[in-house]
Amino acid sequence: MRPSPPTEMERSMEKIITVFQRFASKEGSQGSMNFKEFENFMNVELISFTKNQKDPNIVRKIMNSVDGGVDGKKNNELDFQEFLNLIGGIMVAGHEALSKCPPKQARVTCFFSSSPRHLPPPRQR
Amino acid sequence: MRPSPPTEMERSMEKIITVFQRFASKEGSQGSMNFKEFENFMNVELISFTKNQKDPNIVRKIMNSVDGGVDGKKNNELDFQEFLNLIGGIMVAGHEALSKCPPKQARVTCFFSSSPRHLPPPRQR
Repeated sequence: MRPSPPTEMERSMEKIITVFQRFASKEGSQGSMNFKEFENFMNVELISFTKNQKDPNIVRKIMNSVDGGVDGKKNNELDFQEFLNLIGGIMVAGHEALSKCPPKQARVTCFFSSSPRHLPPPRQR
Repeated sequence: MRPSPPTEMERSMEKIITVFQRFASKEGSQGSMNFKEFENFMNVELISFTKNQKDPNIVRKIMNSVDGGVDGKKNNELDFQEFLNLIGGIMVAGHEALSKCPPKQARVTCFFSSSPRHLPPPRQR
């Protein structure tokens, strides 16, 4: 039996994993991102978000706010769960922004218009 | 200046939000999914995962394991953060499965081959 084509949700979830694995595997540990890999990811894949931030140290601050939140190790490496927490924080801000998006404005513009104050603190464990 | 086209990551994040909003807005509160909306979501958008589960009550069990984890209210409604926790749990299992995916196997098949024991417990807050 031929498998059904993936749904929109399945494709999106798989893409996020694939992007993480692509950046994490550039150097060092394949299963986590060091600061350079993370900075590269933010400047390539989340550029609409990154370029809207006024603080030049925003990437370092975001990484510091999540690193150590899951594995308890502040090791300058983001594992996949820490990465998902970070992406989740941006998505929650985006979800709020999209709910208020004027009908004629591009949805992606709304999504990434959120300022850093919308970034929720890292999840408590 | 014309905005740059969204990246793979931006598109995937926006899609997940859009899918959540589409199912959540079918009835009752627009910002959360009740059980019927969640069951519908699981049977339409995560069917590759759902159909692999042997437990007929799996959808109810998954919902119960996440409901109340974020807003502290066990109210039979999933808000967006609770939904992301759930999706995150499936993605962590998928990430592990994809890391071991044989080169010739379709990535989506690997992703959703994870059995329920791979579902991590809901995040502690």
